[in-house]
Amino acid sequence: MLSEFSLIDRFFARRAARTRPPSSATGGAASSTNTALREGAIALGIGDDCALIAPPAGEMMAISTDMLVEGRHFFADIDPRALGHKALAVNLSDLAAMGAKPQAFTLAFSLPRADEAWLAAFSEGLFDIAERFNCELIGGDTTSGPLNLCITVFGSVPAHVALRRDAARAGDDIWVSGTLGDARAGLGVARNEWQANASDAAHFRHALERPEPRIELGLALRGLAYAALDISDGLAGDLMHILERSQMNATVDADALPRSEQLSRLPADVQRRCTVAGGDDYELCFTAPVAARASIEKVSDNAGVRATRIGTIIAPDSAAATPTIAWHDATGAPLTLTLQGFDHFHAD
Amino acid sequence: MLSEFSLIDRFFARRAARTRPPSSATGGAASSTNTALREGAIALGIGDDCALIAPPAGEMMAISTDMLVEGRHFFADIDPRALGHKALAVNLSDLAAMGAKPQAFTLAFSLPRADEAWLAAFSEGLFDIAERFNCELIGGDTTSGPLNLCITVFGSVPAHVALRRDAARAGDDIWVSGTLGDARAGLGVARNEWQANASDAAHFRHALERPEPRIELGLALRGLAYAALDISDGLAGDLMHILERSQMNATVDADALPRSEQLSRLPADVQRRCTVAGGDDYELCFTAPVAARASIEKVSDNAGVRATRIGTIIAPDSAAATPTIAWHDATGAPLTLTLQGFDHFHAD
Repeated sequence: MLSEFSLIDRFFARRAARTRPPSSATGGAASSTNTALREGAIALGIGDDCALIAPPAGEMMAISTDMLVEGRHFFADIDPRALGHKALAVNLSDLAAMGAKPQAFTLAFSLPRADEAWLAAFSEGLFDIAERFNCELIGGDTTSGPLNLCITVFGSVPAHVALRRDAARAGDDIWVSGTLGDARAGLGVARNEWQANASDAAHFRHALERPEPRIELGLALRGLAYAALDISDGLAGDLMHILERSQMNATVDADALPRSEQLSRLPADVQRRCTVAGGDDYELCFTAPVAARASIEKVSDNAGVRATRIGTIIAPDSAAATPTIAWHDATGAPLTLTLQGFDHFHAD
Repeated sequence: MLSEFSLIDRFFARRAARTRPPSSATGGAASSTNTALREGAIALGIGDDCALIAPPAGEMMAISTDMLVEGRHFFADIDPRALGHKALAVNLSDLAAMGAKPQAFTLAFSLPRADEAWLAAFSEGLFDIAERFNCELIGGDTTSGPLNLCITVFGSVPAHVALRRDAARAGDDIWVSGTLGDARAGLGVARNEWQANASDAAHFRHALERPEPRIELGLALRGLAYAALDISDGLAGDLMHILERSQMNATVDADALPRSEQLSRLPADVQRRCTVAGGDDYELCFTAPVAARASIEKVSDNAGVRATRIGTIIAPDSAAATPTIAWHDATGAPLTLTLQGFDHFHAD
């Protein structure tokens, strides 16, 4: 059994320090007056009461926090390497949805026991994605208790190009990145709600455990898109957040929702359920003016991810009304959808 | 049973918005291009993928995160109002230990069920202390699961006056604020390790559940103190963190450790155990040059908290050696202390 301090040092602090990007100021000066100070820098990482960081001059820090609980957000038998990946990926996805550039993160977790093999694999998955996005671990907290992971992530973005939820405008196209529903399909296979062949099941499970944050696309959408969020609780519920904050309505073509080959092999009703209301997609949903279509296709190509137009933002008759999404199919026939977004205090 | 979103809105988002300090930019602009942008401001709080904040020009953001777990950091029967207080207080204490000014915090928590009375009391305790320190709730996450609270707190401090752990110098006085050991005494009473009369027991329990972050003192120590931290795991263990980071040794008079009247009524060995190695004190331990003595007494008076000199920082014979604390009693006789700081992966 490792003590808390040797545990942190062994699996986290050393690798965090070793992988500090060269742009960061060096910590550990014997006197605070010797500290190199630079904006857009990390002046102090793990090991003090607080980390000290600053955004680049003229930019804001974008901050998001997510908590992952065993049995709710992941299965008890998840590969700890995948869990390390996912815990940071879902937070980076929030930065992507703001058009923010990753800078740093803190990690707090409770563990039933300090299992070295588990921690080695978890930290490997965590640092693999952290290093890929130049996101430095700057602090944390560990304690014993039921398995729970809480990451807070920090990025930077000039405020006037931040992709906010309240910025959708009437006439905007509604776009989504990548494909929707694979993670929900994986959950359904695990729960025996439906079946898939071994290869498709592996694809779905990968989508569930290894979401890819759309950081590059988010950065490329600065100045092109108006409103954005990442789809974590299902498109239907999450799009409503944009509509509520922007006081707008929307029409969406449910048949236009992009889906994988693998998902296309599941029954039509399962496809619809997974694409419309599946959680854990971590794709971006964003709105942009019609004039930006060609640019968006180009920047999404460059970012290596497909962007698909799925609908249109509509001005409401009355600003006071509750926003609505008018769903229709490929023929234009209206659909009535009662599927709700994922809600952590309701049975799913 | 409330849904996640109405729960957040009802107990947290509305009050966070209502109590936003006037210095913050107003959120909710219909277009991101209209957003008021100011450094040292909160441009976007709860309700988007990320909050957007920035430190004042030329300052760094100080960031700390703490996780509190039922049974480990608080008893299951804790008054939820006290828990709301303590969850933020222990994080604010980390800002105090850096000399940072509180700015904002995020709150992530998992709850077994959405109990309205519990949430009302918890959020009341939380916002009471948040408002007292002008610390705005800017984001969070809620989920179902075993009770777990994770707060990340943000403050601001000019980097050259930040109170770091690595800045202690040979010859510095070692100081602590307030009194030590009352929280540990309260834990001992609750565990029947020792007894106290009802009034003393209430005092100890208050210390355990209602720690007061030394924000004002931390701010006043900018430019006066060199190294600092907050005592969360016990003086013996925490002072070692300063010594390790500063590559220094120390001598400490165990009889000089400040204690309450109430603690003075417990047996001498209990007093020593609680003051030297008790956890959950959340007092500041800091080092400062001898020339600063009068100034420190003055600023601590102004901050309404006693500061007590307990020892001296000593240069090591060899920089490579493991730091040591030489404990002695009031007569100067050396003491051998084997008590360890609080470690979350050892039995306490």
